[in-house]
Amino acid sequence: MAELTDGRIYNFNPGPATLPVEVLREVQSEMLNFNGSGMSILEISHRAKQYDEVHNAAKADILTLMNLGDDYDVLFIQGGASLQFAMVAMNFATAANKGNYILSGNFAERAYDEAKILGVGEIAASSKEGGYRHIPTQDEIKLTSDAAYLHICMNNTIYGTEYHYVPQTGEVPLIADMSSDMLSRPLDFGKFSLIYAGVQKNLGPAGVVMVVAKKSFIENSPATLPTMLRYNTFLKKNSLYNTPPAFCIYTVGKVAKWIKDNGGLAAMQERNKKKASVVYDAIDNSDGFYKGHADKDSRSLMNVTFRLPSEELEKKFVAEALEHKLGGVKGHRSVGGMRASIYNAMPFEGCERLAAFMNDFRKKN
Amino acid sequence: MAELTDGRIYNFNPGPATLPVEVLREVQSEMLNFNGSGMSILEISHRAKQYDEVHNAAKADILTLMNLGDDYDVLFIQGGASLQFAMVAMNFATAANKGNYILSGNFAERAYDEAKILGVGEIAASSKEGGYRHIPTQDEIKLTSDAAYLHICMNNTIYGTEYHYVPQTGEVPLIADMSSDMLSRPLDFGKFSLIYAGVQKNLGPAGVVMVVAKKSFIENSPATLPTMLRYNTFLKKNSLYNTPPAFCIYTVGKVAKWIKDNGGLAAMQERNKKKASVVYDAIDNSDGFYKGHADKDSRSLMNVTFRLPSEELEKKFVAEALEHKLGGVKGHRSVGGMRASIYNAMPFEGCERLAAFMNDFRKKN
Repeated sequence: MAELTDGRIYNFNPGPATLPVEVLREVQSEMLNFNGSGMSILEISHRAKQYDEVHNAAKADILTLMNLGDDYDVLFIQGGASLQFAMVAMNFATAANKGNYILSGNFAERAYDEAKILGVGEIAASSKEGGYRHIPTQDEIKLTSDAAYLHICMNNTIYGTEYHYVPQTGEVPLIADMSSDMLSRPLDFGKFSLIYAGVQKNLGPAGVVMVVAKKSFIENSPATLPTMLRYNTFLKKNSLYNTPPAFCIYTVGKVAKWIKDNGGLAAMQERNKKKASVVYDAIDNSDGFYKGHADKDSRSLMNVTFRLPSEELEKKFVAEALEHKLGGVKGHRSVGGMRASIYNAMPFEGCERLAAFMNDFRKKN
Repeated sequence: MAELTDGRIYNFNPGPATLPVEVLREVQSEMLNFNGSGMSILEISHRAKQYDEVHNAAKADILTLMNLGDDYDVLFIQGGASLQFAMVAMNFATAANKGNYILSGNFAERAYDEAKILGVGEIAASSKEGGYRHIPTQDEIKLTSDAAYLHICMNNTIYGTEYHYVPQTGEVPLIADMSSDMLSRPLDFGKFSLIYAGVQKNLGPAGVVMVVAKKSFIENSPATLPTMLRYNTFLKKNSLYNTPPAFCIYTVGKVAKWIKDNGGLAAMQERNKKKASVVYDAIDNSDGFYKGHADKDSRSLMNVTFRLPSEELEKKFVAEALEHKLGGVKGHRSVGGMRASIYNAMPFEGCERLAAFMNDFRKKN
């Protein structure tokens, strides 16, 4: 899976992000006629048998990868994680039972902000001070009494930090935004009441959020909410209450199958650790030329963030990287510097080439 | 554009529905490397210049086709028309200024239902009695005093009826769901304050709603609403507040360009009239073998609905049609019988072949 073909480059974008080239080739080959239907997957009715198989196979593969049983279900919802920020608060929190939030980065904050708009959010912990360099520890978490849930953002794309533990919350349901590390490693997913992930980072094209939830947690949604904002609408109707974003789900299904075919989450984790370590090594062995943003114990396996000695050198780095077919390495404006996003689909060879370029660039500058 | 290639069939599905084969071929050819970027359009950052051009060109082409100036804007929102039903009510209606609704079919009802959940909806006219066979006339419309808006569903996919006039509402803003006939004919779009269309019927793959609205109508959204449910979030951020459904927008852009290249809305209307008339003629000249559902003066140019003498014959019709490479002709369960959806991308030859098959089937049965 490593060789660059078709004029392609190694794509370190944070999302939308690189996808397995094998998946893209399949999508391409089926574009005019899906599975003998005489129609493109873009043209098939969401009530047709051909689509039904795609939809349900994707769901089944996701639950298998996560090692979850049928007390969980997979929902496909539109609107991005940003709409989930609101739906979580609308479905589960009230002024009496507030949602509790750990602030660990930009998207964690935005989730809290949506609860605040509705007057139902509280901060349970924060690492904002110091610039979100670490993930709050278990000891830092202070839940309010009668908390409706604890919400965390598992991986912080912009800052390059990631939880390496699952918070203990006792009886309080745990909800996680896993947009940027979903299906990148095995976890005890059964500890979570609801997980959501905008798929455009690690799992597919922008346009669908994968929600994996305990059925009992989502079966009763407030009847005062609009139909499309109730989780139980999607649960009851197998995410087919209205036309789903079929192409995105179809592609996510192919990516899930690709993960299975490549050894599942344990193999992904092993590969991702190996990939991340060559890039972090290039930082750590640079005599301070590259400075990582995240504290070492909070480092993300998905997004490696680092600065160079000057903004001028950072600009030069981006331009020269692209000449070496290394694209999308510019960091987010709020942190500055570089960010290499190395999701599941980034091959080891891409990270190796990036590390070699980093070493070379350092010597020349 | 008429010949069937690649094992494709004529696809009369109501949505997701047939797309121009030229567009599908372009999508296919660019799947691994978009515009020299070295990445698929599925993998490109929504903040990248390459995506920006796609996004803004699609918007510009849509406004040009609709003959609208820069007092209007195009927004791309996820969640389908079903979420628009709720957003319209949440953004514009209150208990004091209720949204007014014309019930002309299933989706018109659903839009009203969402307003009802919020306690802000009133019925201004209805053709439910008699099974939605006609579009309510101007005389039938009774607006409440202080109506926040009048909402109509321009084309009723399930029943095969379509507005052939634009309701006059005086000072009351007019809002229309045009999911199933958007960009199929010229209209005085400037009479509408807000138009929305799930693109999966006439304009692209499922996963995005195109909203075309008067800027002044949507620039102030209630600050009590979640960010993603305010129209002005999309207006202020050029629909890039969060990651947009990039692939859907990219494909919609290609379809808009295809419409322009094929003569614009006037040419589409002419072609669509010609297409519809061969199918309606097959009904009208069948000595009552085929019975149209819609009253003649309310007939849709997009969805032709009809029954056969028995359900047994209807089943046989569906099966034999498919053998003639005519797919997706089964009607919706609430009307029964047949429905031939003949959106912009259905070539004349598809309608001709359907009409020939209908004549032949009638003679044999």
